Amino acid sequence: MFTVEKIDGESRARAGLLTTPHGNVETPVFMPVGTQGTVKTVSPQELHTLGAQIILSNTYHLYLRPGDRLIQEAGGLHRFIGWPHPILTDSGGYQVFSLAELCKVNDEGVRFQSHLDGSYHDFTPEGVVDIQRNLGSDVMMVLDECSPYPCAHEIAVKANERTIRWAERSLNRYLETDPPLGLQQYIFGIVQGSTYQTIREVSTKRLVEMAFDGYGIGGLAVGEPRIVMLEMIEYCIDLLPKEKPRYLMGVGKPEDIVEAIALGVDLFDCVIPTRNGRNGTVYTREGKLVVKNRHFEKDFIPIDELCQCYTCQHFSRAYIRHLFQAEEILGLRLATIHNLHFYMTLIREARQAIIKGSFQKWKETFLNQYSSETSIHS
Amino acid sequence: MFTVEKIDGESRARAGLLTTPHGNVETPVFMPVGTQGTVKTVSPQELHTLGAQIILSNTYHLYLRPGDRLIQEAGGLHRFIGWPHPILTDSGGYQVFSLAELCKVNDEGVRFQSHLDGSYHDFTPEGVVDIQRNLGSDVMMVLDECSPYPCAHEIAVKANERTIRWAERSLNRYLETDPPLGLQQYIFGIVQGSTYQTIREVSTKRLVEMAFDGYGIGGLAVGEPRIVMLEMIEYCIDLLPKEKPRYLMGVGKPEDIVEAIALGVDLFDCVIPTRNGRNGTVYTREGKLVVKNRHFEKDFIPIDELCQCYTCQHFSRAYIRHLFQAEEILGLRLATIHNLHFYMTLIREARQAIIKGSFQKWKETFLNQYSSETSIHS
Repeated sequence: MFTVEKIDGESRARAGLLTTPHGNVETPVFMPVGTQGTVKTVSPQELHTLGAQIILSNTYHLYLRPGDRLIQEAGGLHRFIGWPHPILTDSGGYQVFSLAELCKVNDEGVRFQSHLDGSYHDFTPEGVVDIQRNLGSDVMMVLDECSPYPCAHEIAVKANERTIRWAERSLNRYLETDPPLGLQQYIFGIVQGSTYQTIREVSTKRLVEMAFDGYGIGGLAVGEPRIVMLEMIEYCIDLLPKEKPRYLMGVGKPEDIVEAIALGVDLFDCVIPTRNGRNGTVYTREGKLVVKNRHFEKDFIPIDELCQCYTCQHFSRAYIRHLFQAEEILGLRLATIHNLHFYMTLIREARQAIIKGSFQKWKETFLNQYSSETSIHS
Repeated sequence: MFTVEKIDGESRARAGLLTTPHGNVETPVFMPVGTQGTVKTVSPQELHTLGAQIILSNTYHLYLRPGDRLIQEAGGLHRFIGWPHPILTDSGGYQVFSLAELCKVNDEGVRFQSHLDGSYHDFTPEGVVDIQRNLGSDVMMVLDECSPYPCAHEIAVKANERTIRWAERSLNRYLETDPPLGLQQYIFGIVQGSTYQTIREVSTKRLVEMAFDGYGIGGLAVGEPRIVMLEMIEYCIDLLPKEKPRYLMGVGKPEDIVEAIALGVDLFDCVIPTRNGRNGTVYTREGKLVVKNRHFEKDFIPIDELCQCYTCQHFSRAYIRHLFQAEEILGLRLATIHNLHFYMTLIREARQAIIKGSFQKWKETFLNQYSSETSIHS
């Protein structure tokens, strides 16, 4: 299901191919986030045009609304949302711990109240596999216990031990069930362990023993220093099998993605490009622009003059600013399209550079040009 | 600039061609409303794909934000909003009387407070022509005084006399000014007169003497009974020259458009398809559906199984309902696309029927099938 096509000579960056029943995914890849069964403001047609190969959707949200059984009745998530290409669903672990109210964990699973109506629900490792079977996603993630940052060592140890036990139970349920539509679904374990190398080591080794189809690296980009995040990624990847895909969950900023690719990460997801777009912040190769600012009132050039996206080919900064001022939905959409195009182009260029053997040079050029620290005219 | 291509044998329905510097418009035509320089939720690309030939935009809104001078600096409205096809701008008369605060009319013009920030502004017939020159719309409308419904006869007489004097002043300003980009702009007069035949007669005759490029029929669909509206349309059209385009302003419902085509109307605009779409109400040949209702929770067929629009080709009622429940923007957009497609298809079919000589039969078939009274499952 996963083939490494090329490994960079100067870093651990690699180009690979993930095959699924809904199509192939060239890695490294960025997955736009479609939390509630839609990548906010854009259509499946637009996503496809933007070069999106795989999207992420959320077990927690879809279970609560419209419900995984309804989606199964509709013929599965791909059919329900009109996206015939690959889908990865996360387990809902992160959402339960961050969004739900009154979340109570014990060894059996987690009880929580819906953020929508306060109703009580239980997620167990087995139940979350069942939900993702109903959804029919191409890649399922196991239920994990997410530690906050900072997290005391003994709490992180306990959460990790539980996450490992849950991973075993998830795998067992996965092995004793079949996908409802007969289409193969993969299952990924999730490495946890907060910012502690020793716990990350235990987590990674135990999950690798279980031989998942791939591995998520979780619990990062939750507030820890960037250098710590990169260290943890490197440490986990050292212990992960080379032949399996590696998915850095919820990361991130363009500069972090580029560094993580160099460390050998294959899959990424993050709400940043879409959420920033809806907030009027857009990306250029020099850095971010707050396009809704007054500064751009009479700026009649595109967001990025070299950009080939629909937004930049047809509209000026001044028009997009006007749409934000006038609270017109098209503004959210044009900014989202541009930002997704930026991310898609970035990661496609990274892949091409890996294949050509020029990744290190490409990475340095990008990072030298791109200002991560300051938003221009913000 | 306008050619009547075919007149129906059994009604006054006619097929025509309006030529503008930004392209030709086959009439009868429906103009989607892009109040603030965007047809809400959809892109110019989508509008074009939907078969929109001409859109309407609002002088009042664009003057206040982002300002007609800024739009002129941007190279005109077409370029600013990325719509290279024809645009009609209304005069702002209707908006001043319905949206603005503290609106005071005298012979010179109308003073009003912006609905955005309470700032004071003056619209005069000359100023409104100047604004539309700056916008560079293909069809400009004169400033008129809109009477409410019901309206006392003497008030309607006075408003009409003022509207006629304003029309003369608008025409004079039009004749002594040039379009900034050198592209011909047409100017339409607006017939008023509330629900009074005698006033409508005075209005129509006086405007026709002025030889405008076309004529708007205004002040209808503001609460009067449908039969009165249709009578007024018929009465005005009897007095309007056959060789000029006729534009029924702000109308309307599918059944009203079909009847008005039969009376000889060429152009229509209305917020109904787009506004209803955003409210979760969608059109089928049998009538309207409130697709966001619970009734459609597990309804996995398209809004209209025979419809060829992007929405119906890819998504179910259940998914669109889910998007509305989850407050996802894609829901507003898919419903808008479907409704605009419904209107575009309706009026294109009407035109084809006129050309084929089968309009009366087509109209009866449509009206027999379409239920205007009840929303199904509302």
